[in-house]
Amino acid sequence: MVQLDLRFANKFVSLHEVDQFQPVIEDAHRRLHSGQVPGADYLGWLHLPSEVIKSGYDDLTSAAREIRESADALVVIGIGGSYLGARAAFEWMKPEYYNQLPREVRGGPELYFAGNHLSAAAQKDLLRVLEGKRVYLNVISKSGTTTEPAVAFRILRSWLQQQVGPDEAKRRIYITTDAHKGALKELSDTEGYRTFVVPDDVGGRYSVLTPVGLLPLASVGVDIAAMLEGAANAEEKLNTPELSDNPAYQYAAVRNALYRKGKNTEIFAYYEPSLKMVAEWWKQLFGESEGKDHKGIYPASVGYTTDLHSMGQFVQEGYRNLFETVVRIENPVSELTLPSTPDVQDGLEYLAGKPLAFINDQARLATQIAHVDGEVPNLLLNVNDQSARSLGELFYFFELACAMSGQLQGVNAFNQPGVEAYKINMFALLGKPGYEQQRRDLIGQLEQPAKG
Amino acid sequence: MVQLDLRFANKFVSLHEVDQFQPVIEDAHRRLHSGQVPGADYLGWLHLPSEVIKSGYDDLTSAAREIRESADALVVIGIGGSYLGARAAFEWMKPEYYNQLPREVRGGPELYFAGNHLSAAAQKDLLRVLEGKRVYLNVISKSGTTTEPAVAFRILRSWLQQQVGPDEAKRRIYITTDAHKGALKELSDTEGYRTFVVPDDVGGRYSVLTPVGLLPLASVGVDIAAMLEGAANAEEKLNTPELSDNPAYQYAAVRNALYRKGKNTEIFAYYEPSLKMVAEWWKQLFGESEGKDHKGIYPASVGYTTDLHSMGQFVQEGYRNLFETVVRIENPVSELTLPSTPDVQDGLEYLAGKPLAFINDQARLATQIAHVDGEVPNLLLNVNDQSARSLGELFYFFELACAMSGQLQGVNAFNQPGVEAYKINMFALLGKPGYEQQRRDLIGQLEQPAKG
Repeated sequence: MVQLDLRFANKFVSLHEVDQFQPVIEDAHRRLHSGQVPGADYLGWLHLPSEVIKSGYDDLTSAAREIRESADALVVIGIGGSYLGARAAFEWMKPEYYNQLPREVRGGPELYFAGNHLSAAAQKDLLRVLEGKRVYLNVISKSGTTTEPAVAFRILRSWLQQQVGPDEAKRRIYITTDAHKGALKELSDTEGYRTFVVPDDVGGRYSVLTPVGLLPLASVGVDIAAMLEGAANAEEKLNTPELSDNPAYQYAAVRNALYRKGKNTEIFAYYEPSLKMVAEWWKQLFGESEGKDHKGIYPASVGYTTDLHSMGQFVQEGYRNLFETVVRIENPVSELTLPSTPDVQDGLEYLAGKPLAFINDQARLATQIAHVDGEVPNLLLNVNDQSARSLGELFYFFELACAMSGQLQGVNAFNQPGVEAYKINMFALLGKPGYEQQRRDLIGQLEQPAKG
Repeated sequence: MVQLDLRFANKFVSLHEVDQFQPVIEDAHRRLHSGQVPGADYLGWLHLPSEVIKSGYDDLTSAAREIRESADALVVIGIGGSYLGARAAFEWMKPEYYNQLPREVRGGPELYFAGNHLSAAAQKDLLRVLEGKRVYLNVISKSGTTTEPAVAFRILRSWLQQQVGPDEAKRRIYITTDAHKGALKELSDTEGYRTFVVPDDVGGRYSVLTPVGLLPLASVGVDIAAMLEGAANAEEKLNTPELSDNPAYQYAAVRNALYRKGKNTEIFAYYEPSLKMVAEWWKQLFGESEGKDHKGIYPASVGYTTDLHSMGQFVQEGYRNLFETVVRIENPVSELTLPSTPDVQDGLEYLAGKPLAFINDQARLATQIAHVDGEVPNLLLNVNDQSARSLGELFYFFELACAMSGQLQGVNAFNQPGVEAYKINMFALLGKPGYEQQRRDLIGQLEQPAKG
């Protein structure tokens, strides 16, 4: 299981401070499990892993097998929670440059993510790389009307229809959407697209273990059974209100203790480049859950040791509102040792023959000590390895920790009211029918002169 | 030229507040140009563009031509300032999936960045993708002893020697390092590697327009002459202490005004995914220059509209210590319009035929208005296009703005004393000869029990 090591935090948060969260956590745990928290309509993730395992997912596996066997390239169209989990797991599990490896090494299709921006340049770059390939699409959108994926789906569907004709295009499109309603559900019923369901009681940022994440991941050969087992294991182990037995609740408690002392930026730090998108997934999970009512911890991330040479100075000596959460892989995937090259005077010959994994982990330890000396509290999360199972554990760990942290912060951890503000402005500026008054108001506002 | 638009900031910073920086800026401008600021040994970047143009760079161009014609893949080994500028410019200029395009489309080698981490997994992934290719190396390190690039160089040089023999390997290695001393300079003299110089008076984060950035960029066909001309244009236009004529100084003034009001996190936001690494370059530039003496603005970044669906909620409604700096490309590269698909009820048919660039820019405007309503000051930097020339301007703009901002903040903007702390710990933990006492101290420290 994921373990939380507080040795680099206890200069800043005493054990008794953490213990004082026990009664509040006990109460919040009970309310979470009895559906008595704000946003209780979105608690489906709480027992999702065990329920998915129990109910099975043969449909999904067989669709994934079909894609895996037939597609040269799978394009996953989705944004926010409809892509970050799958991408995080993909990069965690698969080698860098995966798409450049020969098909026989990959064993499945190339994988691309689309529909997560509005850039024409990026869209054209994607079309160019897809040229001549047998392309399948998986569109993921609960409503079917989110602008970015809808735009990409229009472009990619039209392109696909031109390439292979409308009938073959139908066979290559898989839709993950609402069970009963919405634009994509209606279209799927008309066109006969294969569909998968985004459950009603699981919000986007908690959806990686639903078909939203599972279908693309299974299609590129990720062992989703192991991932679900890991998550179910965490679901079981973390189903206790006892702080001393629950590292997810400890994490929630410590970050809230730090926040109350003015540490309002949390830096998620990792030492394997392949964790980059896990950090992005984590940022959505925590930022979107907690950033409301003008409060919350700002979620940032750094990839070390890379960013020790860019952000390292600031973390060591800059403005002191920071703390770091380091996700450490205890048993990294690959063994590779430093070659002996006595003719190079780089000062590293004393390390010849040592595994890179050793050097990397000492750099991690050295940095945690240095940052603590620099007054930056450090939390350390130990994850066993970079397997699908460990990632399942980690996903559930963070989901539960985030839900608890939201209770400690006193927010609805499951809604995201703030994302509507720009959308209303955008529809008005784009001239969407029904937004005429907002359009007039905005244009008037934009024409006001600057104050002196 | 890069233009600063303050319309989304003036709710938070009045024009008279900015004007009050005028005398301080005038003085700091004079001191910058007469070498009377802290860290004055590192002011070489100030007139670098015009001087490089004047003195010429034929050696570099001819080396780049050789790499361009002969290499299947160029691996650039460097970390921090020795890679972020080149990577930022590469991604700004070249299509996504560049390495997957056919050689005749690319017109030059594939490009990889190495030596910026200590991950065995990532290192092995790189070796696998290089298999069977005609590989050239460009190692960039002033001292030659920075751990990450030194580790990668050991591994990649050994690999290359095994692949092609020691003599051919020599011809394929290009070194960018100190003019006179250091491990790589010595090795180059012995082995006969072609070398390029990292100037003494230009720090890593200001080095993109030296051979550090120029050699790899020219090797993949970036028009470095245009980039230098853009930078030289900015150098000329921004060589004025008059705030009203100098958007770089305006930017420095406004961000300092905001900092003094408690806005201690600046989010660099962009709407073209290809600006991602420009944001990373900017984070090093500002974070490493200003994050010292327990002060400074924390540099963060988001890629919109992508991150509106992850970080958007926090920016709209979270803890209010944020401001945003939006870099907008006024004339984006590609035209692509939204196809008409009346059978899809996605609510977008009213936009059929409209350019994506229009939709993207309205999303940008809508978001800036929404975030200002949410009490997040927004600065807007307008950049003409995604050309090499405009990027040269932008690089210089930020370099000068950062130097001035450091003066307003009252720090040495050109050193990075804090990056030594973890290095000393790391050498001690790794058992480097000469660090025995620190090693004993650290191990003693790690064995202390937690406080209760």
